[in-house]
Amino acid sequence: MPQSEKSLIARIRRISGTSQGIALGIGDDAAILRIPPGHEMLVTTDFSLEGVHFRRDWHSPESVGHRCLARGLSDIAAMGGEPVAVFLSLAVPEKLPQKWVDGFLRGLTALARQHRVALAGGDTSASPDGILADIVVVGSAPVGKAVRRSGAKPGDLIYVTGELGGSALALAKMYASPKKKLNAKKCPRHFFPEPRLAVGCYLRERKIATSMIDLSDGLSTDLHHICEESEVGASISAELIPRAHHASLEHALHGGEDYELLFTTPAGSKVPDKIVGVPVTRIGEIQRTREISIWTQSEGAKAKRSALIPGGWEHFQE
Amino acid sequence: MPQSEKSLIARIRRISGTSQGIALGIGDDAAILRIPPGHEMLVTTDFSLEGVHFRRDWHSPESVGHRCLARGLSDIAAMGGEPVAVFLSLAVPEKLPQKWVDGFLRGLTALARQHRVALAGGDTSASPDGILADIVVVGSAPVGKAVRRSGAKPGDLIYVTGELGGSALALAKMYASPKKKLNAKKCPRHFFPEPRLAVGCYLRERKIATSMIDLSDGLSTDLHHICEESEVGASISAELIPRAHHASLEHALHGGEDYELLFTTPAGSKVPDKIVGVPVTRIGEIQRTREISIWTQSEGAKAKRSALIPGGWEHFQE
Repeated sequence: MPQSEKSLIARIRRISGTSQGIALGIGDDAAILRIPPGHEMLVTTDFSLEGVHFRRDWHSPESVGHRCLARGLSDIAAMGGEPVAVFLSLAVPEKLPQKWVDGFLRGLTALARQHRVALAGGDTSASPDGILADIVVVGSAPVGKAVRRSGAKPGDLIYVTGELGGSALALAKMYASPKKKLNAKKCPRHFFPEPRLAVGCYLRERKIATSMIDLSDGLSTDLHHICEESEVGASISAELIPRAHHASLEHALHGGEDYELLFTTPAGSKVPDKIVGVPVTRIGEIQRTREISIWTQSEGAKAKRSALIPGGWEHFQE
Repeated sequence: MPQSEKSLIARIRRISGTSQGIALGIGDDAAILRIPPGHEMLVTTDFSLEGVHFRRDWHSPESVGHRCLARGLSDIAAMGGEPVAVFLSLAVPEKLPQKWVDGFLRGLTALARQHRVALAGGDTSASPDGILADIVVVGSAPVGKAVRRSGAKPGDLIYVTGELGGSALALAKMYASPKKKLNAKKCPRHFFPEPRLAVGCYLRERKIATSMIDLSDGLSTDLHHICEESEVGASISAELIPRAHHASLEHALHGGEDYELLFTTPAGSKVPDKIVGVPVTRIGEIQRTREISIWTQSEGAKAKRSALIPGGWEHFQE
């Protein structure tokens, strides 16, 4: 085993930990997890590949580590689950500075700590080319209570959390001036997105959400996922979509990686304006017919309805 | 999303399935698994990267798919667990023939079916370079009963299953004649290794094994892992090590990827010569002193004891 991989393993071991659900962490053939009685397990895996999901010249190692874990945690949030343990598979090129790995692990562990979840295992390898990470997040939810994509019913109202388009806007700026480094603090939704775990749990516990998904691919694509799995259609209004500062309708509709939640709820439900501090906005309604459409309103003209075509996130490769 | 990735997702969906433990498979933000009451979950993740763990000119896609899953199942076997669900993250270069992906998935699903475990999720992506796979296997074992690396006690006897060195011998042949394709049927331990799940369960159920590990890195390295976690030493005899046909002592000691099991058992235990058809051989003894040594015997000379240095598998990169 090359020295660099040994040091990688040592570094990962150092940041690994245990928590209530982890009976045995790193250092055996498999980790041992204990799911609370009456709960089922949620499992999600997400790649973070250099040149596809991030660029070393655009994203700091801390941001890459944060985003890597945020992707997985956001999936657990979208089920209304609570995270139990994290597994990281990480392959790095021989020549990668150890400083980069340290920054990556720092970004990842800071987010893990925030959500009280520990690293329980994974794999390491030399990479023949770029940096390759695959994150696995295991979560739990009471049996039968996890919120699926398939529960939306005609007449349900459609909501989103937070504001959309902020991440795509930052990406567009980087494409426009590839050499200019963006200030990550000014674009937190792109560089340090917050998975909406507390909101997801709130919606599941209070039985508000009939279906839910996280906005990783973009509203237009993710709404299609909900409709496909629920066998319904939807109608949303462009002007109701909460947009991040300076984000265009295109960014809000088709840009991905905002990691907000999209959910549906029966028309009579009481949905607060804010849930654990996060704004929640109604943007449309589920329909019986299988079409998915959007109402847009130009100044002085009548509102116009058109088909909403999925135009979600295409990664960095075109 | 590029067409190739859509087709990849469609292909993976087609081979995914459900089983008793999978309440919800592919098609949501996370899969939902149900672990039997009184059981704990085992989780293991393993990379299979082109140029590191396999070479496209040496390994057929079926072999790569089989080996990818075998690595994960073997980890579950080493805990004495039973597999519950498999998650596959797969990134492929734009130009990879679909035939290759089909072969890979065929190899993977054939092994999955053999062990009655289904694909419950994962991730797909375009790869900027080679083929990248990360396999996650979730298993289960009765609470507190999974066999760890840390349970070996001084005086315990050391056993291995099957024969060692077969995989390394095949690898050595390929290194010697890189252009010549080996007949995979003649080198099954390298191209289509059998994870020892039934043996692992047998040893756990009958409380035979005090510690266990799978031989993925090579006997010398993996014995060190057992000794390190158990805080003991070991002494083994070269002549007792069961070797695959034509495999040298070096292959058997330091070659990895045989995916046999190495376990320890109290001196009085009854260990059959064969477990579910697999030969089981005593090769040494656990010792109180922290040294790890090997006895070798040259013809006519006295047996010689020397330190066993970990010389395990170094992947393909040197």
